[in-house]
Amino acid sequence: MTVAAPLDRNLPATEDLHDWDRTHQLHPWAAMDDWRGYDHMMVDSAKGIYLWDGTGKRFIDGPGGMWCVQIGYGRREMADAIAEQVMTLPYTSPWTTTTEPSAILAKKLADMAPGDLNNVFFTTGGSTAVDTAIRTVHFMNNRLGRPDKKIVIAREKGYHGSTYLASSVTGKERDKSRFDVEKRLVRFLPDVNPYRRAEGQSVEAWCDEKVADLEAMIAEVGAENVGAFIAEPILCSGGVIVPPEGYHKRTHEICRKHDILYISDEVVTGFGRLGHWFASQEVFGITPDIITCAKGLTSGYLPLGACIISDSVMERMTDPDDAALFANGYTYSAHPVCCAAALKNIEILETENILEHVRALAPHFQKRLQALRRFDIVGDVRGMGLLGCIEGGAKTLAGERRLGAMLDEVCEEMGLLVRPLINMAVFSPPLVITRAEVDEMFDILERALEEVSRRLAAA
Amino acid sequence: MTVAAPLDRNLPATEDLHDWDRTHQLHPWAAMDDWRGYDHMMVDSAKGIYLWDGTGKRFIDGPGGMWCVQIGYGRREMADAIAEQVMTLPYTSPWTTTTEPSAILAKKLADMAPGDLNNVFFTTGGSTAVDTAIRTVHFMNNRLGRPDKKIVIAREKGYHGSTYLASSVTGKERDKSRFDVEKRLVRFLPDVNPYRRAEGQSVEAWCDEKVADLEAMIAEVGAENVGAFIAEPILCSGGVIVPPEGYHKRTHEICRKHDILYISDEVVTGFGRLGHWFASQEVFGITPDIITCAKGLTSGYLPLGACIISDSVMERMTDPDDAALFANGYTYSAHPVCCAAALKNIEILETENILEHVRALAPHFQKRLQALRRFDIVGDVRGMGLLGCIEGGAKTLAGERRLGAMLDEVCEEMGLLVRPLINMAVFSPPLVITRAEVDEMFDILERALEEVSRRLAAA
Ligand SMILES: Cc1ncc(COP(=O)(O)O)c(C=O)c1O
Ligand SMILES: Cc1ncc(COP(=O)(O)O)c(C=O)c1O
Repeated sequence: MTVAAPLDRNLPATEDLHDWDRTHQLHPWAAMDDWRGYDHMMVDSAKGIYLWDGTGKRFIDGPGGMWCVQIGYGRREMADAIAEQVMTLPYTSPWTTTTEPSAILAKKLADMAPGDLNNVFFTTGGSTAVDTAIRTVHFMNNRLGRPDKKIVIAREKGYHGSTYLASSVTGKERDKSRFDVEKRLVRFLPDVNPYRRAEGQSVEAWCDEKVADLEAMIAEVGAENVGAFIAEPILCSGGVIVPPEGYHKRTHEICRKHDILYISDEVVTGFGRLGHWFASQEVFGITPDIITCAKGLTSGYLPLGACIISDSVMERMTDPDDAALFANGYTYSAHPVCCAAALKNIEILETENILEHVRALAPHFQKRLQALRRFDIVGDVRGMGLLGCIEGGAKTLAGERRLGAMLDEVCEEMGLLVRPLINMAVFSPPLVITRAEVDEMFDILERALEEVSRRLAAA
Repeated sequence: MTVAAPLDRNLPATEDLHDWDRTHQLHPWAAMDDWRGYDHMMVDSAKGIYLWDGTGKRFIDGPGGMWCVQIGYGRREMADAIAEQVMTLPYTSPWTTTTEPSAILAKKLADMAPGDLNNVFFTTGGSTAVDTAIRTVHFMNNRLGRPDKKIVIAREKGYHGSTYLASSVTGKERDKSRFDVEKRLVRFLPDVNPYRRAEGQSVEAWCDEKVADLEAMIAEVGAENVGAFIAEPILCSGGVIVPPEGYHKRTHEICRKHDILYISDEVVTGFGRLGHWFASQEVFGITPDIITCAKGLTSGYLPLGACIISDSVMERMTDPDDAALFANGYTYSAHPVCCAAALKNIEILETENILEHVRALAPHFQKRLQALRRFDIVGDVRGMGLLGCIEGGAKTLAGERRLGAMLDEVCEEMGLLVRPLINMAVFSPPLVITRAEVDEMFDILERALEEVSRRLAAA
């Protein structure tokens, strides 16, 4: 059962697997003009920060799964903890019963979360955590007799998931093409990326402008109609957009002033990506009303999400004279095996001092990232903690796409997976990455950028 | 790691766990007038068809987790298969990559599903499968240039989950009290339960009436505005309501006639509950356009759901001249560990001939269930396969609730967990239950009904 990668699994053959996958699995974000026409990379095995594909080729896992594999792959302690919980109690209904792992995990998360965020509702991932958060806003405001206070202010380029409701507050326009969203429930603020500010504008002036965008939106919609503001501390899938300094606190104050719930979507930023359990308070100085999290909570080893709600919101949802039910939940809410995986993951993060490691390593990671600015084809680089993004500097969208695709291809040839996002490549490697491995990763990136520059110049 | 229940885990103490659970975990369907005021039963361990609580008391698991633990608890093969996949590859992104377990599972599900239901989209449970199914209807009809053909016809007492969208098509009125739903997208047909038919009405006449309800609704809304009909083959959470004979085929034909997609929600009925992989075709003779499933797919051991889409729907979503993306999906779609658990679960169902076992045992199970009619306090009993429900026959809602709660309490005293649903108790034990264990379960039920009758007579 130990993994000596590449695996020697004789059957089925990789080509059969690709055939079955192509013919029978519809993948997220599949291109619908050609949905059986192309193959996804077959990942065979993984260990530490490395992945192996079906041909035995090794890659550094630049995206860390999908911003989630904090503790790295191939952890025997995780396999043991999971197997033990499977044998003890693989399932029980969260409606009528509870379990040791879910009770301990709820307590742990309440301790980790800032302020009075003491109430944990477990879900199956980030989208269901966001869906629950927004439904909580509905419940509270219905209860308070202000049924119109429901509009969610969200942001362009924000990503909050893929249920109908989570997708409705997602601001990545291109993703919405053929699916419907519930437009009446949401308003979007324009891009907060300082890279997009006008030539000559200071970051401070940009921040003022972005804060004013929120105020103007509230004035336009009417505070009595705005239920919540939802924001990732850093807009990750939108391209690791770090809002300008001071933005979080000022927007948070505005929400407080208008009794608008602040939902901090920490699906990516939680569990150490920025060197802390949660980033809202420790990094950005705010205590939200609701935090949503998933991904790093289990390091992606098993599906789990959580919507953490403040005491104050809970109290406002409560009416001792009205026994209404919190009629929301999933068969797999608080799944005991997933909760046991989260507990072991947190234990590993604690005992191996991984948060400290991230805080110590981040300056080096960010320095190596910033050094990539020297390439002409690089438009911007940005990041924080062990999050990074390179944005191409081509002049046309077609040029941007070409650059993004080429960088992706060259990195892959050189043994590094990056997550391509049109003209961007993002990085969020496993948090256990060493300084030497960070250097290995950025060395490859530099060589890849050189190669891409060469190819583009030759074209 | 073998389970000798009750467990001897010294710390933390059960009372601490209850304290943490009460103070920090918000459970599905929590009573909001008193959300820190009561405890959930602490389930400690499980083996076969039995559960143990924190005090060492043993229970037969009447509800089989929550209609899901088909293969029973404590399966070493499951723990091994899960641990092995954790060590090999715990996670990889379904956006850009694929894996052996997900490719094999997609192929298996396509083989099991009827007709041209060949395309599997993986999710994290039933709600996200339903959310995806309805979004697929949106995508298809937007693509076909008929953006108004979106209304979903659903049924009173149907349960389809808890995302905003899944909850919107759920017809259990009492569940909706303080949460919002998207009313514009859905219409509900009245109860199809033959038990509710008028005195003297034949089941055939009832069926005609229920089919006419659908036709009338389509005529009222306009077929050009109706995108889909969503239906559980048996309305399980609504109280194991088996629609009258012929209902499925006739409603399916009506949908065909009006180009309305038929979504068969097999979250409970799939994976052997009625003795077949899926019930739509094998039990009820219809080939739907979309099947949603979850629960029994992994026997609840890990979270996984699937939305299985027909080739015909896929083709109608495709336009070679328009590269729109199927921009829907979850970080934990096609989770490799959950897919590996599903594969092992299916292998166990196959090698132990559990579907045949269910088909052989069901008549005895149903006979013992029907025999409970002899109690005056029983209004109705109904079921199919290894699904059963007892409905109380009290005259008032308060009386019904009292009866339901009392039956629940007495069964619990006697070592049987039932799932209480107001005035009903439902059963869906692990499918591996033996004939002797079925007798043990119904013997307890008979004693419990005697005891409840006695208590009510004495009151
Ligand atoms: C900030 C944020 N919120 C929510 C989600 C949705 O999470 P999931 O894919 O687990 O449903 C994501 C996923 O990338 C995310 O990045
Ligand atoms: C028929 C049906 N559909 C959907 C669901 C929702 O599934 P989940 O709770 O896994 O989200 C359920 C859950 O009980 C169900 O019974």
